[in-house]
Amino acid sequence: MADPAATGAGGEAAAAGSAGLAGLSLGHGFSSYRPFEPQEAGLQVLAEPSPSLPALGIGMDSCVIPLRHGGLSLVQTTDFFYPLVDDPYMMGRIACANVLSDLYAMGITECDNMLMLLSVSQSMTEEEREKVTPLLVRGFRDAAEDGGTAVTGGQTVVNPWVIVGGVATVVCQPNEFIMPDSAVVGDVLVLTKPLGTQVAVNAHQWLDNPEKWNKIKMVVSREEVELAYREAMFNMATLNRTAAGLMHTFNAHAATDITGFGILGHAQNLAKQQRNEVSFVIHNLPIIAKMAAISKASGRFGLLQGTSAETSGGLLICLPREQAARFCSEIKSSKYGEGHQAWIVGIVEKGNRMARIIDKPRVIEVLPRGTTATALPPDHPNASSEPSS
Amino acid sequence: MADPAATGAGGEAAAAGSAGLAGLSLGHGFSSYRPFEPQEAGLQVLAEPSPSLPALGIGMDSCVIPLRHGGLSLVQTTDFFYPLVDDPYMMGRIACANVLSDLYAMGITECDNMLMLLSVSQSMTEEEREKVTPLLVRGFRDAAEDGGTAVTGGQTVVNPWVIVGGVATVVCQPNEFIMPDSAVVGDVLVLTKPLGTQVAVNAHQWLDNPEKWNKIKMVVSREEVELAYREAMFNMATLNRTAAGLMHTFNAHAATDITGFGILGHAQNLAKQQRNEVSFVIHNLPIIAKMAAISKASGRFGLLQGTSAETSGGLLICLPREQAARFCSEIKSSKYGEGHQAWIVGIVEKGNRMARIIDKPRVIEVLPRGTTATALPPDHPNASSEPSS
Repeated sequence: MADPAATGAGGEAAAAGSAGLAGLSLGHGFSSYRPFEPQEAGLQVLAEPSPSLPALGIGMDSCVIPLRHGGLSLVQTTDFFYPLVDDPYMMGRIACANVLSDLYAMGITECDNMLMLLSVSQSMTEEEREKVTPLLVRGFRDAAEDGGTAVTGGQTVVNPWVIVGGVATVVCQPNEFIMPDSAVVGDVLVLTKPLGTQVAVNAHQWLDNPEKWNKIKMVVSREEVELAYREAMFNMATLNRTAAGLMHTFNAHAATDITGFGILGHAQNLAKQQRNEVSFVIHNLPIIAKMAAISKASGRFGLLQGTSAETSGGLLICLPREQAARFCSEIKSSKYGEGHQAWIVGIVEKGNRMARIIDKPRVIEVLPRGTTATALPPDHPNASSEPSS
Repeated sequence: MADPAATGAGGEAAAAGSAGLAGLSLGHGFSSYRPFEPQEAGLQVLAEPSPSLPALGIGMDSCVIPLRHGGLSLVQTTDFFYPLVDDPYMMGRIACANVLSDLYAMGITECDNMLMLLSVSQSMTEEEREKVTPLLVRGFRDAAEDGGTAVTGGQTVVNPWVIVGGVATVVCQPNEFIMPDSAVVGDVLVLTKPLGTQVAVNAHQWLDNPEKWNKIKMVVSREEVELAYREAMFNMATLNRTAAGLMHTFNAHAATDITGFGILGHAQNLAKQQRNEVSFVIHNLPIIAKMAAISKASGRFGLLQGTSAETSGGLLICLPREQAARFCSEIKSSKYGEGHQAWIVGIVEKGNRMARIIDKPRVIEVLPRGTTATALPPDHPNASSEPSS
């Protein structure tokens, strides 16, 4: 989600820093790699009108720059944020998956180059730096390799907080990317990861914060939080590359990825870019099990309103109606590896390029992998359960 | 200088943060946009061996990635650091000039896309953010425009410190870039900006620090520090684009830009990459007037040893001997605008790919623009003076 922030469509700032992630401690015997608490940051500082902005760059997940060389386009995105899980290796993977996701949202499956952006924390000891940093780098590199690319450069600084991010770049022929502007009435909206990542991350922190834990302990057990946290971590680290490839197979008309604005914010952003007079209506919310209940009990997040920030979320894809079910079935195939899922979450109607969630959306409680349906009975009145993969 | 940090050739970290730049205050009525003091940071965290690193990426200012499309290469660099001048607009310009400089060091004069990386400080008031941030962005954008490119995206976060930087990307045909590996014995080394930028920036801060000022007040006046600071600021904000273009005109064999490692560090890095058995010997040090004296009096920096960090410094270019004087003359031509200079600083000898500075280098005291030679008599025994364009 680099470019909405930069080109006037939104000004998204580091989603990971928005929800009270202070004092993360590592599970490996060192103290902390993110000792401060960033503030909510809905910045629009790059949003000033600029005559030099190409229209193609506005509102999309990646910028698309026509090149001087026959028919090729440069597609590029950047993103960086603060750690939000306490496993540095997984954090590196998540940061890389999050950057690549902006390419995948355009149906791009290749990446020609990846740069890594990194800061180590000045409040870490030398020993902590030497343990944490190589793990962050390794996770980032491994995810890049899974994406078929390599990290060839970057920049490292010292900062009060750890920062991790990157820049993904590809040079494409026109048939390699899908402009996110061609939804038609009758299309169906598909989502490829469950919502609730940041709720899970926060709830996991609250395990050590009695005041906050007391607000949610009536609706969730410690074990359920641990499972949801692990599920969120794995989902955030999963590349949207398979989904990007299937966008071509099933003739996708438009897509975006779900990050800091939540599903509703990104759906609205995508709706604004459509060439046809359409609107998006979301009926179903696939959510990591119990996270809807935590969102309600805590009075924060707005998960059921679609405004809860996600990190490295799934793709929201407009597909022809007859293709959507086949997409959801195909992505679960074992040939793509484990853990891929997709749900039909809404429809494309005639309208004024808006997006909304219906009054009482159906919450699909997505069970963490490794659990069974009976272990986590849904408690939401509209809830139904599906095992995760 | 993105890639030495990332690919094992050096691990340069934010040069701007290395020399005590705490407590910078803005001249426009708001308090501070860089309230903390970063530590020295010679990080090599990305230096772990990786089989996936292309050889072309190692040790160069930009990475060069062969593309799948006939003969084209992707050339890309990133850099970000902390503010070091108290004018946010100029700081934006400097950050952009600094990023582009890595392309210019390869003789590349075009840039297809620029992304901006930015953080605002959480310790700023909302009013300060609203004043400072648009100026940073505007300066960055204006410099990008001078470079013939546009800022199409980026990422913004909240952080304890202000961060500003970017990503420059271009897709090139082979004749558009000059690989920095072809120096031959008999070549001459040319430098396109005077040294001493960080000394000037620090000395300017010491005007408000009696303890530090007392160490240098015997060798420099407050007025001279103010002039040097302004000169450094303008030099750092000057694009190396003209020099990049002239590298082609005058058949340059190799080049790099001078940043965090100082002229000696970057000369050594460049020497290591040469295909021929050559070494670089530096005889002359063009230095902003009085900065050599401050470096000696303060006992810091190592400016005369070539180890003082620079920010957005000049290009160090290996040119055929017969072309070097013509290069230095041509770059001063008014057709390229004001403020461009170049000096012959050394020679290429037969050797083992090392670089050194001779025992008593000639210090060329470069007078700030707007001063006359008599206003700033050189005090270094080996010094000579040249007015700055």
